[in-house]
Amino acid sequence: MAAWSERLAGVRGVLLDISGVLHDSGEGGGGRVPIPGSVEALARLKRSQLKVRFCTNESQKSRGDLVGLLRHMGFDISEGEVTAPAPATCLILKERGLRPHLLIHDGIRSEFAQIDTSNPNCVVIADAGESFSYQNMNKAFQVLMELDNPVLISLGKGRYYKETSGLMLDVGAYTKALEYACGIKAEVVGKPAPGYFQSALQEMGVESHELKEHRNKLP
Amino acid sequence: MAAWSERLAGVRGVLLDISGVLHDSGEGGGGRVPIPGSVEALARLKRSQLKVRFCTNESQKSRGDLVGLLRHMGFDISEGEVTAPAPATCLILKERGLRPHLLIHDGIRSEFAQIDTSNPNCVVIADAGESFSYQNMNKAFQVLMELDNPVLISLGKGRYYKETSGLMLDVGAYTKALEYACGIKAEVVGKPAPGYFQSALQEMGVESHELKEHRNKLP
Repeated sequence: MAAWSERLAGVRGVLLDISGVLHDSGEGGGGRVPIPGSVEALARLKRSQLKVRFCTNESQKSRGDLVGLLRHMGFDISEGEVTAPAPATCLILKERGLRPHLLIHDGIRSEFAQIDTSNPNCVVIADAGESFSYQNMNKAFQVLMELDNPVLISLGKGRYYKETSGLMLDVGAYTKALEYACGIKAEVVGKPAPGYFQSALQEMGVESHELKEHRNKLP
Repeated sequence: MAAWSERLAGVRGVLLDISGVLHDSGEGGGGRVPIPGSVEALARLKRSQLKVRFCTNESQKSRGDLVGLLRHMGFDISEGEVTAPAPATCLILKERGLRPHLLIHDGIRSEFAQIDTSNPNCVVIADAGESFSYQNMNKAFQVLMELDNPVLISLGKGRYYKETSGLMLDVGAYTKALEYACGIKAEVVGKPAPGYFQSALQEMGVESHELKEHRNKLP
Protein backbone atom coordinates (compact mmCIF):
# COMPACT_ATOMS: atom_id res chain seq x y z
CA MET A 1 0.00 0.00 0.00
CA ALA A 2 2.94 2.28 0.67
CA ALA A 3 4.07 1.96 -2.95
CA TRP A 4 0.58 2.86 -4.16
CA SER A 5 0.44 5.97 -2.00
CA GLU A 6 3.86 7.10 -3.22
CA ARG A 7 3.01 6.55 -6.87
CA LEU A 8 -0.25 8.40 -6.49
CA ALA A 9 1.10 11.40 -4.57
CA GLY A 10 -0.56 14.52 -5.97
CA VAL A 11 -2.86 12.47 -8.18
CA ARG A 12 -6.57 13.26 -7.91
CA GLY A 13 -7.99 11.21 -10.74
CA VAL A 14 -7.50 8.13 -12.88
CA LEU A 15 -8.42 8.07 -16.55
CA LEU A 16 -8.84 4.50 -17.78
CA ASP A 17 -9.02 3.02 -21.23
CA ILE A 18 -11.57 0.23 -21.63
CA SER A 19 -10.53 -2.21 -24.38
CA GLY A 20 -7.28 -3.90 -23.34
CA VAL A 21 -7.60 -2.49 -19.81
CA LEU A 22 -10.96 -3.69 -18.53
CA HIS A 23 -11.58 -6.36 -21.17
CA ASP A 24 -9.97 -8.11 -24.10
CA SER A 25 -11.60 -7.83 -27.52
CA GLY A 26 -13.45 -10.74 -29.01
CA GLU A 27 -14.27 -11.40 -32.64
CA GLY A 28 -16.41 -8.78 -34.39
CA GLY A 29 -16.62 -6.76 -31.18
CA GLY A 30 -18.44 -9.65 -29.49
CA GLY A 31 -17.04 -12.24 -27.14
CA ARG A 32 -15.26 -9.62 -25.03
CA VAL A 33 -13.99 -11.06 -21.76
CA PRO A 34 -12.92 -9.18 -18.60
CA ILE A 35 -9.19 -9.18 -17.96
CA PRO A 36 -8.63 -11.23 -14.77
CA GLY A 37 -8.53 -9.00 -11.70
CA SER A 38 -9.78 -5.88 -13.47
CA VAL A 39 -13.29 -5.96 -11.97
CA GLU A 40 -11.78 -5.98 -8.47
CA ALA A 41 -9.14 -3.36 -9.37
CA LEU A 42 -11.80 -0.96 -10.60
CA ALA A 43 -13.91 -1.55 -7.50
CA ARG A 44 -10.86 -0.70 -5.37
CA LEU A 45 -10.22 2.49 -7.33
CA LYS A 46 -13.84 3.50 -6.87
CA ARG A 47 -13.59 2.96 -3.11
CA SER A 48 -10.54 5.27 -3.01
CA GLN A 49 -10.54 9.07 -2.92
CA LEU A 50 -9.57 9.16 -6.60
CA LYS A 51 -11.89 10.39 -9.30
CA VAL A 52 -12.30 7.73 -11.97
CA ARG A 53 -13.28 8.26 -15.60
CA PHE A 54 -13.12 6.10 -18.71
CA CYS A 55 -11.68 7.37 -21.98
CA THR A 56 -12.16 5.08 -24.97
CA ASN A 57 -11.77 5.18 -28.73
CA GLU A 58 -14.58 2.63 -29.07
CA SER A 59 -16.39 3.48 -32.26
CA GLN A 60 -18.26 0.28 -33.10
CA LYS A 61 -20.67 0.33 -30.17
CA SER A 62 -22.78 3.12 -28.65
CA ARG A 63 -21.85 4.25 -25.18
CA GLY A 64 -25.06 2.69 -23.82
CA ASP A 65 -24.36 -0.70 -25.39
CA LEU A 66 -20.75 -0.64 -24.23
CA VAL A 67 -21.65 0.22 -20.64
CA GLY A 68 -24.36 -2.45 -20.63
CA LEU A 69 -21.78 -5.03 -21.71
CA LEU A 70 -19.29 -3.90 -19.05
CA ARG A 71 -21.88 -3.90 -16.27
CA HIS A 72 -22.86 -7.41 -17.33
CA MET A 73 -19.19 -8.38 -16.85
CA GLY A 74 -19.35 -7.00 -13.31
CA PHE A 75 -17.74 -3.58 -13.76
CA ASP A 76 -18.99 -0.64 -11.71
CA ILE A 77 -19.45 1.84 -14.56
CA SER A 78 -22.15 4.20 -15.79
CA GLU A 79 -22.69 5.91 -19.14
CA GLY A 80 -21.97 9.36 -17.70
CA GLU A 81 -18.47 8.27 -16.70
CA VAL A 82 -17.41 7.40 -20.24
CA THR A 83 -15.75 9.77 -22.71
CA ALA A 84 -16.24 8.30 -26.20
CA PRO A 85 -15.54 9.71 -29.66
CA ALA A 86 -19.08 9.56 -31.03
CA PRO A 87 -20.71 11.86 -28.43
CA ALA A 88 -17.65 14.14 -28.58
CA THR A 89 -18.05 14.32 -32.36
CA CYS A 90 -21.75 15.16 -32.07
CA LEU A 91 -20.85 18.19 -29.94
CA ILE A 92 -18.38 19.38 -32.59
CA LEU A 93 -20.89 18.83 -35.41
CA LYS A 94 -23.51 20.90 -33.61
CA GLU A 95 -21.08 23.67 -32.67
CA ARG A 96 -19.86 24.06 -36.23
CA GLY A 97 -23.14 23.47 -38.07
CA LEU A 98 -21.73 20.39 -39.79
CA ARG A 99 -24.04 17.83 -41.41
CA PRO A 100 -22.11 14.58 -41.76
CA HIS A 101 -22.10 11.81 -44.26
CA LEU A 102 -21.55 8.88 -41.87
CA LEU A 103 -19.11 6.09 -42.69
CA ILE A 104 -19.65 4.19 -39.45
CA HIS A 105 -20.57 0.85 -37.92
CA ASP A 106 -24.29 0.27 -37.49
CA GLY A 107 -23.57 -0.28 -33.79
CA ILE A 108 -22.98 3.46 -33.18
CA ARG A 109 -25.53 4.88 -35.61
CA SER A 110 -27.88 5.57 -32.67
CA GLU A 111 -25.32 8.06 -31.25
CA PHE A 112 -25.97 10.28 -34.28
CA ALA A 113 -29.78 10.04 -34.10
CA GLN A 114 -30.15 13.75 -33.27
CA ILE A 115 -27.74 14.91 -35.99
CA ASP A 116 -28.92 16.37 -39.31
CA THR A 117 -27.35 14.28 -42.07
CA SER A 118 -29.17 15.86 -45.00
CA ASN A 119 -27.14 17.53 -47.75
CA PRO A 120 -23.83 16.62 -46.06
CA ASN A 121 -20.99 19.15 -45.73
CA CYS A 122 -18.50 16.83 -44.05
CA VAL A 123 -17.65 13.14 -43.61
CA VAL A 124 -17.40 11.34 -40.27
CA ILE A 125 -15.41 8.11 -40.38
CA ALA A 126 -15.25 5.56 -37.56
CA ASP A 127 -14.22 1.95 -37.23
CA ALA A 128 -16.84 0.64 -39.65
CA GLY A 129 -15.48 -2.91 -39.83
CA GLU A 130 -17.20 -4.88 -42.59
CA SER A 131 -18.96 -1.68 -43.68
CA PHE A 132 -15.62 -0.49 -45.12
CA SER A 133 -16.70 -1.77 -48.54
CA TYR A 134 -15.36 -0.20 -51.72
CA GLN A 135 -18.79 1.20 -52.41
CA ASN A 136 -19.06 2.87 -48.99
CA MET A 137 -15.49 4.20 -49.10
CA ASN A 138 -16.07 5.55 -52.59
CA LYS A 139 -19.28 7.28 -51.55
CA ALA A 140 -17.47 9.04 -48.68
CA PHE A 141 -14.69 9.99 -51.10
CA GLN A 142 -17.16 11.43 -53.61
CA VAL A 143 -18.91 13.47 -50.90
CA LEU A 144 -15.56 14.98 -49.86
CA MET A 145 -14.53 15.73 -53.45
CA GLU A 146 -17.76 17.62 -54.07
CA LEU A 147 -17.15 19.99 -51.14
CA ASP A 148 -15.37 23.31 -51.60
CA ASN A 149 -13.87 22.91 -48.15
CA PRO A 150 -13.75 19.18 -47.45
CA VAL A 151 -13.91 18.32 -43.74
CA LEU A 152 -13.11 14.78 -42.64
CA ILE A 153 -13.58 13.90 -38.97
CA SER A 154 -12.01 10.62 -37.88
CA LEU A 155 -13.03 8.88 -34.65
CA GLY A 156 -9.53 7.89 -33.57
CA LYS A 157 -6.57 7.08 -35.78
CA GLY A 158 -5.76 3.53 -34.69
CA ARG A 159 -3.74 1.40 -37.11
CA TYR A 160 -5.20 -1.91 -35.99
CA TYR A 161 -6.58 -3.76 -33.01
CA LYS A 162 -6.47 -7.31 -31.83
CA GLU A 163 -9.37 -9.69 -31.78
CA THR A 164 -9.33 -13.32 -30.78
CA SER A 165 -9.33 -14.17 -34.51
CA GLY A 166 -6.27 -11.98 -35.22
CA LEU A 167 -5.27 -8.42 -36.02
CA MET A 168 -7.94 -6.19 -37.56
CA LEU A 169 -7.52 -2.98 -39.58
CA ASP A 170 -8.70 0.03 -37.61
CA VAL A 171 -10.19 3.34 -38.72
CA GLY A 172 -6.80 5.09 -39.05
CA ALA A 173 -5.90 3.04 -42.12
CA TYR A 174 -9.10 4.02 -43.93
CA THR A 175 -8.73 7.63 -42.86
CA LYS A 176 -5.27 7.65 -44.48
CA ALA A 177 -6.82 6.30 -47.67
CA LEU A 178 -9.33 9.17 -47.84
CA GLU A 179 -6.70 11.75 -46.84
CA TYR A 180 -4.45 10.61 -49.69
CA ALA A 181 -7.22 10.36 -52.28
CA CYS A 182 -8.61 13.82 -51.46
CA GLY A 183 -5.32 15.54 -50.59
CA ILE A 184 -6.65 16.60 -47.18
CA LYS A 185 -5.88 16.08 -43.49
CA ALA A 186 -8.49 14.60 -41.17
CA GLU A 187 -9.44 16.05 -37.79
CA VAL A 188 -9.07 13.32 -35.18
CA VAL A 189 -11.62 13.06 -32.36
CA GLY A 190 -10.32 10.50 -29.90
CA LYS A 191 -7.01 9.52 -28.44
CA PRO A 192 -4.27 10.66 -28.89
CA ALA A 193 -5.73 14.09 -29.78
CA PRO A 194 -4.92 16.44 -26.84
CA GLY A 195 -8.32 18.11 -27.07
CA TYR A 196 -9.99 14.78 -26.52
CA PHE A 197 -8.10 14.13 -23.29
CA GLN A 198 -8.85 17.70 -22.21
CA SER A 199 -12.58 17.18 -22.64
CA ALA A 200 -12.36 14.01 -20.53
CA LEU A 201 -10.54 15.97 -17.80
CA GLN A 202 -13.10 18.75 -17.87
CA GLU A 203 -15.84 16.19 -17.39
CA MET A 204 -13.91 14.83 -14.38
CA GLY A 205 -13.21 18.27 -12.94
CA VAL A 206 -9.49 17.49 -12.77
CA GLU A 207 -6.46 19.37 -14.12
CA SER A 208 -4.04 17.44 -16.29
CA HIS A 209 -1.21 17.50 -13.70
CA GLU A 210 -3.55 15.90 -11.17
CA LEU A 211 -4.17 12.93 -13.42
CA LYS A 212 -2.74 9.47 -13.70
CA GLU A 213 -3.46 7.66 -16.91
CA HIS A 214 -3.06 3.89 -16.90
CA ARG A 215 -1.94 2.62 -20.29
CA ASN A 216 -1.49 -0.97 -19.21
CA LYS A 217 -3.75 -3.61 -17.82
CA LEU A 218 -5.12 -2.68 -14.43
CA PRO A 219 -4.22 -5.64 -12.21
CA MET B 1 3.43 20.11 -90.52
CA ALA B 2 6.29 22.55 -89.97
CA ALA B 3 5.29 22.99 -86.34
CA TRP B 4 5.20 19.22 -85.84
CA SER B 5 8.69 18.78 -87.28
CA GLU B 6 10.06 21.52 -85.04
CA ARG B 7 8.46 20.14 -81.91
CA LEU B 8 9.72 16.66 -82.69
CA ALA B 9 13.32 17.62 -83.55
CA GLY B 10 15.61 15.01 -81.96
CA VAL B 11 12.68 12.88 -80.87
CA ARG B 12 12.79 9.23 -81.90
CA GLY B 13 9.90 7.80 -79.98
CA VAL B 14 6.50 8.55 -78.48
CA LEU B 15 5.34 6.92 -75.27
CA LEU B 16 1.57 7.10 -74.94
CA ASP B 17 -0.76 6.56 -72.02
CA ILE B 18 -3.97 4.72 -72.87
CA SER B 19 -6.81 5.71 -70.50
CA GLY B 20 -7.57 9.40 -70.97
CA VAL B 21 -5.39 9.50 -74.12
CA LEU B 22 -6.82 6.87 -76.44
CA HIS B 23 -10.13 6.36 -74.65
CA ASP B 24 -12.25 7.70 -71.82
CA SER B 25 -13.16 5.36 -68.97
CA GLY B 26 -16.64 3.98 -68.62
CA GLU B 27 -18.33 2.58 -65.56
CA GLY B 28 -16.66 -0.44 -63.94
CA GLY B 29 -13.96 -0.42 -66.62
CA GLY B 30 -16.60 -1.13 -69.25
CA GLY B 31 -18.23 1.31 -71.65
CA ARG B 32 -14.88 2.83 -72.61
CA VAL B 33 -15.16 5.06 -75.67
CA PRO B 34 -12.40 6.28 -77.99
CA ILE B 35 -11.57 9.96 -77.64
CA PRO B 36 -12.61 11.64 -80.91
CA GLY B 37 -9.70 11.84 -83.34
CA SER B 38 -7.40 9.55 -81.35
CA VAL B 39 -7.72 6.55 -83.69
CA GLU B 40 -6.59 8.72 -86.61
CA ALA B 41 -3.85 10.43 -84.57
CA LEU B 42 -2.36 7.07 -83.58
CA ALA B 43 -2.51 5.86 -87.18
CA ARG B 44 -0.62 9.00 -88.24
CA LEU B 45 2.05 8.44 -85.57
CA LYS B 46 2.46 4.87 -86.75
CA ARG B 47 2.94 6.03 -90.34
CA SER B 48 5.72 8.37 -89.18
CA GLN B 49 9.36 7.50 -88.50
CA LEU B 50 8.69 7.62 -84.74
CA LYS B 51 8.74 4.58 -82.53
CA VAL B 52 5.47 4.27 -80.65
CA ARG B 53 4.86 2.46 -77.37
CA PHE B 54 2.05 2.47 -74.82
CA CYS B 55 2.69 2.85 -71.11
CA THR B 56 -0.32 2.31 -68.89
CA ASN B 57 -1.13 1.88 -65.21
CA GLU B 58 -4.13 -0.26 -66.13
CA SER B 59 -4.45 -2.84 -63.41
CA GLN B 60 -8.05 -4.04 -63.74
CA LYS B 61 -7.69 -5.74 -67.13
CA SER B 62 -5.04 -8.09 -68.53
CA ARG B 63 -2.92 -6.73 -71.35
CA GLY B 64 -4.64 -9.13 -73.77
CA ASP B 65 -8.12 -7.99 -72.81
CA LEU B 66 -7.11 -4.34 -72.95
CA VAL B 67 -5.56 -4.64 -76.40
CA GLY B 68 -8.58 -6.59 -77.65
CA LEU B 69 -10.83 -3.76 -76.50
CA LEU B 70 -8.65 -1.11 -78.14
CA ARG B 71 -8.42 -2.98 -81.43
CA HIS B 72 -12.20 -3.30 -81.39
CA MET B 73 -12.34 0.51 -81.09
CA GLY B 74 -10.15 0.76 -84.20
CA PHE B 75 -6.73 1.39 -82.66
CA ASP B 76 -3.64 -0.06 -84.33
CA ILE B 77 -2.09 -1.66 -81.25
CA SER B 78 -0.64 -5.04 -80.31
CA GLU B 79 0.04 -6.66 -76.94
CA GLY B 80 3.81 -6.49 -77.39
CA GLU B 81 3.66 -2.70 -77.68
CA VAL B 82 2.14 -2.23 -74.22
CA THR B 83 4.06 -1.72 -70.97
CA ALA B 84 1.69 -2.58 -68.11
CA PRO B 85 2.28 -2.95 -64.36
CA ALA B 86 1.15 -6.57 -64.01
CA PRO B 87 3.70 -8.13 -66.41
CA ALA B 88 6.39 -5.79 -65.02
CA THR B 89 5.51 -7.00 -61.51
CA CYS B 90 5.73 -10.65 -62.58
CA LEU B 91 9.31 -10.05 -63.72
CA ILE B 92 10.19 -8.54 -60.33
CA LEU B 93 8.52 -11.38 -58.42
CA LYS B 94 10.47 -13.98 -60.40
CA GLU B 95 13.77 -12.12 -60.08
CA ARG B 96 13.45 -11.81 -56.30
CA GLY B 97 11.84 -15.17 -55.55
CA LEU B 98 8.71 -13.47 -54.20
CA ARG B 99 5.46 -15.40 -53.79
CA PRO B 100 2.63 -12.87 -53.64
CA HIS B 101 -0.66 -12.75 -51.85
CA LEU B 102 -2.71 -11.02 -54.56
CA LEU B 103 -5.15 -8.22 -53.73
CA ILE B 104 -6.21 -7.61 -57.31
CA HIS B 105 -9.16 -7.37 -59.68
CA ASP B 106 -10.27 -10.68 -61.17
CA GLY B 107 -9.70 -9.10 -64.60
CA ILE B 108 -5.89 -9.30 -64.25
CA ARG B 109 -5.63 -12.56 -62.33
CA SER B 110 -4.64 -14.32 -65.55
CA GLU B 111 -1.45 -12.20 -65.73
CA PHE B 112 -0.23 -13.96 -62.58
CA ALA B 113 -1.09 -17.49 -63.78
CA GLN B 114 2.59 -18.52 -63.90
CA ILE B 115 3.41 -17.09 -60.46
CA ASP B 116 3.74 -19.24 -57.34
CA THR B 117 1.34 -17.84 -54.77
CA SER B 118 1.75 -20.57 -52.14
CA ASN B 119 2.99 -19.60 -48.67
CA PRO B 120 3.16 -15.88 -49.60
CA ASN B 121 6.14 -13.72 -48.66
CA CYS B 122 4.81 -10.45 -50.07
CA VAL B 123 1.58 -8.70 -51.04
CA VAL B 124 0.77 -7.34 -54.49
CA ILE B 125 -1.97 -4.71 -54.54
CA ALA B 126 -3.64 -3.36 -57.68
CA ASP B 127 -6.80 -1.46 -58.48
CA ALA B 128 -9.13 -4.15 -57.14
CA GLY B 129 -12.31 -2.07 -57.35
CA GLU B 130 -15.21 -3.80 -55.61
CA SER B 131 -12.77 -6.46 -54.36
CA PHE B 132 -11.40 -3.87 -51.90
CA SER B 133 -13.70 -5.32 -49.23
CA TYR B 134 -12.81 -5.06 -45.55
CA GLN B 135 -12.24 -8.80 -45.49
CA ASN B 136 -9.82 -8.73 -48.44
CA MET B 137 -7.96 -5.69 -47.13
CA ASN B 138 -7.67 -7.27 -43.70
CA LYS B 139 -6.35 -10.52 -45.17
CA ALA B 140 -3.60 -8.62 -47.04
CA PHE B 141 -2.82 -6.69 -43.84
CA GLN B 142 -2.55 -9.90 -41.82
CA VAL B 143 -0.22 -11.49 -44.40
CA LEU B 144 2.08 -8.45 -44.20
CA MET B 145 2.05 -8.38 -40.40
CA GLU B 146 3.11 -12.02 -40.25
CA LEU B 147 6.22 -11.39 -42.38
CA ASP B 148 9.58 -10.58 -40.78
CA ASN B 149 10.37 -8.34 -43.74
CA PRO B 150 7.01 -7.21 -45.15
CA VAL B 151 7.13 -6.39 -48.87
CA LEU B 152 4.19 -4.55 -50.42
CA ILE B 153 4.21 -4.03 -54.19
CA SER B 154 1.67 -1.54 -55.50
CA LEU B 155 0.66 -1.44 -59.18
CA GLY B 156 0.62 2.34 -59.49
CA LYS B 157 -0.19 4.90 -56.81
CA GLY B 158 -3.13 6.72 -58.37
CA ARG B 159 -5.42 8.63 -56.01
CA TYR B 160 -8.54 8.25 -58.14
CA TYR B 161 -9.78 8.00 -61.68
CA LYS B 162 -12.83 9.18 -63.50
CA GLU B 163 -15.60 6.99 -64.79
CA THR B 164 -18.79 8.09 -66.48
CA SER B 165 -20.54 7.52 -63.13
CA GLY B 166 -18.11 9.76 -61.22
CA LEU B 167 -14.74 9.72 -59.46
CA MET B 168 -13.49 6.33 -58.23
CA LEU B 169 -10.90 5.56 -55.56
CA ASP B 170 -7.73 4.14 -57.10
CA VAL B 171 -5.15 1.71 -55.75
CA GLY B 172 -2.97 4.44 -54.20
CA ALA B 173 -5.54 5.15 -51.50
CA TYR B 174 -5.66 1.51 -50.42
CA THR B 175 -1.89 1.23 -50.58
CA LYS B 176 -1.66 4.17 -48.15
CA ALA B 177 -4.04 2.35 -45.81
CA LEU B 178 -1.81 -0.74 -45.71
CA GLU B 179 1.37 1.36 -45.43
CA TYR B 180 -0.04 3.17 -42.41
CA ALA B 181 -1.44 0.06 -40.72
CA CYS B 182 1.80 -1.91 -41.14
CA GLY B 183 4.25 0.99 -40.76
CA ILE B 184 5.90 0.21 -44.10
CA LYS B 185 6.49 1.82 -47.49
CA ALA B 186 5.23 0.17 -50.67
CA GLU B 187 7.31 -0.35 -53.80
CA VAL B 188 5.44 1.18 -56.74
CA VAL B 189 5.45 -0.59 -60.10
CA GLY B 190 3.89 1.74 -62.63
CA LYS B 191 3.96 5.43 -63.37
CA PRO B 192 5.41 7.67 -62.00
CA ALA B 193 8.18 5.29 -60.84
CA PRO B 194 11.30 6.12 -62.93
CA GLY B 195 12.22 2.42 -63.25
CA TYR B 196 8.89 1.76 -64.88
CA PHE B 197 9.44 4.39 -67.58
CA GLN B 198 12.97 3.06 -68.07
CA SER B 199 11.70 -0.46 -68.73
CA ALA B 200 9.26 0.94 -71.31
CA LEU B 201 12.14 2.78 -73.01
CA GLN B 202 14.32 -0.33 -73.05
CA GLU B 203 11.51 -2.22 -74.72
CA MET B 204 11.33 0.56 -77.34
CA GLY B 205 15.09 0.71 -77.82
CA VAL B 206 15.06 4.46 -77.18
CA GLU B 207 17.08 6.61 -74.76
CA SER B 208 15.14 8.93 -72.48
CA HIS B 209 16.38 12.13 -74.22
CA GLU B 210 15.07 10.79 -77.53
CA LEU B 211 11.56 10.44 -76.18
CA LYS B 212 8.45 12.54 -76.24
CA GLU B 213 5.79 11.64 -73.74
CA HIS B 214 2.29 12.89 -74.44
CA ARG B 215 0.37 13.54 -71.21
CA ASN B 216 -2.66 15.05 -72.87
CA LYS B 217 -5.24 13.85 -75.29
CA LEU B 218 -3.75 13.03 -78.66
CA PRO B 219 -5.81 15.09 -81.11
